[in-house]
Amino acid sequence: MSSKITPLSGFPEWLPPQRLIEQEILGRVQRTFELYGFAPLETRAVEPLDQLLRKGETSKEVYVLRRLQADENDTSDDQLGLHFDLTVPFARFVLENAGKLQFPFRRYQIQKVWRGERPQEGRYREFYQADIDIVDRDTLPAHYEAEIPLVIGDALGGLPIPKVKIQVNNRKVLEGFYRGLGIESTEEVLRQVDKLDKIGPDQVAAILEKQGLSPQQTGRILALAEIQAPDSGFADRIKQLGVTDPLLDEGVEELARVMDTAVAEKPGLVVADLRIARGLDYYTGTVYETLLEGYERFGSISSGGRYDNLATSGKDVFPGVGISIGVTRLLAILFGRDALTASRSVPTAVLVAVTSEEERPRSVAAAAALRRNGVPTEVAPNAAKFGKQIRYAERRGIPFVWFPGEQDSVKDIRSGEQVDADAATWTPPQEDLRPIITGTV
Amino acid sequence: MSSKITPLSGFPEWLPPQRLIEQEILGRVQRTFELYGFAPLETRAVEPLDQLLRKGETSKEVYVLRRLQADENDTSDDQLGLHFDLTVPFARFVLENAGKLQFPFRRYQIQKVWRGERPQEGRYREFYQADIDIVDRDTLPAHYEAEIPLVIGDALGGLPIPKVKIQVNNRKVLEGFYRGLGIESTEEVLRQVDKLDKIGPDQVAAILEKQGLSPQQTGRILALAEIQAPDSGFADRIKQLGVTDPLLDEGVEELARVMDTAVAEKPGLVVADLRIARGLDYYTGTVYETLLEGYERFGSISSGGRYDNLATSGKDVFPGVGISIGVTRLLAILFGRDALTASRSVPTAVLVAVTSEEERPRSVAAAAALRRNGVPTEVAPNAAKFGKQIRYAERRGIPFVWFPGEQDSVKDIRSGEQVDADAATWTPPQEDLRPIITGTV
Repeated sequence: MSSKITPLSGFPEWLPPQRLIEQEILGRVQRTFELYGFAPLETRAVEPLDQLLRKGETSKEVYVLRRLQADENDTSDDQLGLHFDLTVPFARFVLENAGKLQFPFRRYQIQKVWRGERPQEGRYREFYQADIDIVDRDTLPAHYEAEIPLVIGDALGGLPIPKVKIQVNNRKVLEGFYRGLGIESTEEVLRQVDKLDKIGPDQVAAILEKQGLSPQQTGRILALAEIQAPDSGFADRIKQLGVTDPLLDEGVEELARVMDTAVAEKPGLVVADLRIARGLDYYTGTVYETLLEGYERFGSISSGGRYDNLATSGKDVFPGVGISIGVTRLLAILFGRDALTASRSVPTAVLVAVTSEEERPRSVAAAAALRRNGVPTEVAPNAAKFGKQIRYAERRGIPFVWFPGEQDSVKDIRSGEQVDADAATWTPPQEDLRPIITGTV
Repeated sequence: MSSKITPLSGFPEWLPPQRLIEQEILGRVQRTFELYGFAPLETRAVEPLDQLLRKGETSKEVYVLRRLQADENDTSDDQLGLHFDLTVPFARFVLENAGKLQFPFRRYQIQKVWRGERPQEGRYREFYQADIDIVDRDTLPAHYEAEIPLVIGDALGGLPIPKVKIQVNNRKVLEGFYRGLGIESTEEVLRQVDKLDKIGPDQVAAILEKQGLSPQQTGRILALAEIQAPDSGFADRIKQLGVTDPLLDEGVEELARVMDTAVAEKPGLVVADLRIARGLDYYTGTVYETLLEGYERFGSISSGGRYDNLATSGKDVFPGVGISIGVTRLLAILFGRDALTASRSVPTAVLVAVTSEEERPRSVAAAAALRRNGVPTEVAPNAAKFGKQIRYAERRGIPFVWFPGEQDSVKDIRSGEQVDADAATWTPPQEDLRPIITGTV
């Protein structure tokens, strides 16, 4: 490797202590998903380009693959690209394997995704997403839309990170409300409302009026977007705006259910926020975004919604609801503030010292005995003076050094306390067995 | 998704029960790596093409990336390819981050890799590798070469798979022996010896003699390749061949050490096999291959060795030793024989029945209570007759159904036994908490 080596912008890599943290966070998220009965799934990293380009908006973000040695006439791989999310591959997987799956099908999927974007702060070209989705055949009961925030609340609530707030809305409320106002191009209005956080209400109003909406219509649209409520009280405030439409009623009922369930199970976690629109066009019902308290300006770290038409092939229809946690994004925000630390940089709890190279087998045997009891153990790299071997442990945060002898002993190098011990039976205190991840926010 | 959907050859995807098995196997391998103090690492999926092409042989297997919307003058991504193994990215990572790492540096890395090969049986374009490596600055003690087989023995030995046999050799033995025979182009001989399993000794001899070696030289080369021993007894058999060379002596000593350690710690796991050469040209000392008993014809499922020159930049030299488990390959072999099964297709241990949609909140609350005790729990999709709800559980292998009521009760649907229970305190027997993976070989 003689050429100059520099990091690639947009492709984050963590050092071992950060990777320990990432792994712990991914592991806890996974365990929560499993507690809710989601089955594990992993799809290949590549999809045929025509599947990836179904959502026109994101087409520019796709990385296309080419075999280095492919000759010009070989087009077998021409149509493959790296997936840019886990929802499109999941929809494809469901259609491909529908006959072998049990519906409703609950799955989680924790994988890297890739986007060929120009890198900028907070945007990555390669990053982890942790997704859950529930799909059913033909119809999907609305109660699943109420379950999703509970899962995310548990998954993120159990982590050493700032509190999260899940903002929920329903596309039927927005579309129904706009229809009730006599607007036909509801998608266009949604797109503008999506910009509220970026350009503010005055500019959104100006754009909408330029597109032909009346000041009255625009005023109601903005009034709806201002509604926030910690419970189903949002419904009365919508009613006060005096707009009626059957789709609106349906959406209000669904959103109220989500709020009622959240209030009963996780008070304070979820807020109805009628401003949330989600630009992606495949959502058809509930939509979710999630903010980290104190880090609101970084935007949503977990988003999703209900989609009725994503996994559809001929007469086979699989409506679904899902949400994705942007794990790399979340970690990068917290790493940037040194808000997460690991108690050590290696899994090792015990370093077994080596008295002399001739006696290394005794150290190897002691390490094997400790490992049989589940204690992560390394043997010292060489038979240096014990002080140097202890510094090897110190630099990595390894809490214990083991000294083989006629009578083995073990030293807690933090306190300096050293006691006689038997490798066949000794274990460290539970809290020293694995690195501990702590949040400082 | 209206276009026809078919699997992509070479990109395996597992259904949830198989993914459960894969996850369990990856998890156990990971825990073993951590027991030996290897730190977790993950590198980005892409590397600059010039790094990937350092090993000329594999250049034809690389997938190159291109941004779909890149214009012709934009060459910023032209030089990126997907990694085809985890060793080359690791060597690059070490050079890039040497100042931030503690040496000797022990890391494990479990990731997908990609090869743009023409698919054929047992060859994949996307697959999991699970690697461990130990690198040090300037010099690396030889005892690490003896440690690697112990780790692999524990990692694979703890799995519900057939017994493994690790075959070990040392490149110094081969090169020294060939030099001692007066041969200069030792690499070329290595390449031919590597073909022994494929074309047999007669053809290898014919090729070597065609290249100018004498029948005596060829005879000794083949005699060396025939040596196998369960311990350091291989050394005497080499001596009997009457070839001497300082490099040969060095290699014999190193190989003897690997064998002595293995015999002391894991008798029967490792065999010295002087036929093993490993075609890859970066190995400089010990080399490893691993066969699965009863599946020998599928070849090695875990290979590696010592490399002195892979992570080198100017005066910075980081010799290393490592090994890689081909997890996807291993699983595909065993899945193909139905040799691994999961006790259920979902993580769920309990399905909470729903009496009526109005009373769903009661079921949701019972599920939340069970989850607080770590019991993976789902709520039934609808308030169908209980018989139908029980069949929902049966089809997925969920062992328990929970019935909320004035007095909650729980039914083991395998035995039919139903008992009163309290969701705040009840837990299933330990063996029912998670799916169990069993091997049938």
